[in-house]
Amino acid sequence: MQDSRISEAVISRLPKYYRYLSELEAKETQRVSSSKMSADMGLNASQIRRDLNCFGGFGQQGYGYQVENLKSEIMKILGIGKKYTAVVVGAGNIGQALFKYKNFAEEGYHLAAIFDADQSVVENEIEGVTVRPIEELEDFVVSNNVNLGVITAPKQHAQRIADELVLLGVKGIWNFAPVDVVARRGVCVENVHLSDSLFVLSYRMRTIEEV
Amino acid sequence: MQDSRISEAVISRLPKYYRYLSELEAKETQRVSSSKMSADMGLNASQIRRDLNCFGGFGQQGYGYQVENLKSEIMKILGIGKKYTAVVVGAGNIGQALFKYKNFAEEGYHLAAIFDADQSVVENEIEGVTVRPIEELEDFVVSNNVNLGVITAPKQHAQRIADELVLLGVKGIWNFAPVDVVARRGVCVENVHLSDSLFVLSYRMRTIEEV
Repeated sequence: MQDSRISEAVISRLPKYYRYLSELEAKETQRVSSSKMSADMGLNASQIRRDLNCFGGFGQQGYGYQVENLKSEIMKILGIGKKYTAVVVGAGNIGQALFKYKNFAEEGYHLAAIFDADQSVVENEIEGVTVRPIEELEDFVVSNNVNLGVITAPKQHAQRIADELVLLGVKGIWNFAPVDVVARRGVCVENVHLSDSLFVLSYRMRTIEEV
Repeated sequence: MQDSRISEAVISRLPKYYRYLSELEAKETQRVSSSKMSADMGLNASQIRRDLNCFGGFGQQGYGYQVENLKSEIMKILGIGKKYTAVVVGAGNIGQALFKYKNFAEEGYHLAAIFDADQSVVENEIEGVTVRPIEELEDFVVSNNVNLGVITAPKQHAQRIADELVLLGVKGIWNFAPVDVVARRGVCVENVHLSDSLFVLSYRMRTIEEV
């Protein structure tokens, strides 16, 4: 793998390739050409070839890509299938929704516990799991080797929670609070802004109306 | 506005500029330089200038950008503040979370009703609003001039729901089911895959570990 040279733009497309190849695999398709991928995925075929070449490229002229190999290579690059243990901090709507979402576990991301500072939601049962008081966060993270923190708390608490998680040794922060949290070097952060895709959608709707 | 020439990459960064400028405005900051934006946003200053130049560029040498003007221009381009009326189809965890999320209404996106096909969730109260049976979708969309459909139903129903919404005249589909839905020309679709950002996060975590 030559992934130190993989650009951000290519990385951001890898999940899409991964999803597409998973679907092909489910249909027991064994190989696929870049032109078929292009038609199905709405990406330019030469871009697909360039993207996949970044990490060694398994395509063969007249044969295409071997689905299983390519998928497993992309999984390795993305770190899918490695075991991650995560905590969710904030048991509001989004927190509960993520915590109940089963697909994450299948990909290797184990959401082990959910915490809240609000006494009235603590001890609520969510799919058979109890919401824990925030005071137990430290013990839980340390004793369960938690390496990933999911923040679904209100905006004004997000950075403080991130700081605490980092202090406890978490290596990645997946933040859903509508603010960009930051972490020290060596800790990775993905700030998810659900509205962003809504804005892009309304941009497209507006431009179509005006055509 | 010269937005017919704005590239996809620039469009995808506009929500981030919008959020940043909103924060500046909340702090009553009246102007900002591209180098200050660069430091705060973690983007290259010359890229920022190029991006903002795409739609006329209001920066002035030695003065920077006028925050209020720039924000309102970006809002116009993104179509924020226009009134959208949306329905949410699927009252599961994600559907409920989105439906309860108040920020959307503030930006002009009114989530007017939530529907489900499952009799056992229909008539549940969510923040004072009743989950409606899917059979009422047609009447509701037509009588309320709904122009946006949010799909939060299981994967296997997503495309059928999208087709129905399009048939009823909806102009945009914001899909959260973990499958890419498609629509005919003239209808815009944003497929949101929550796991994608998790995969990108684990990629970064993996590469940091290996350094």
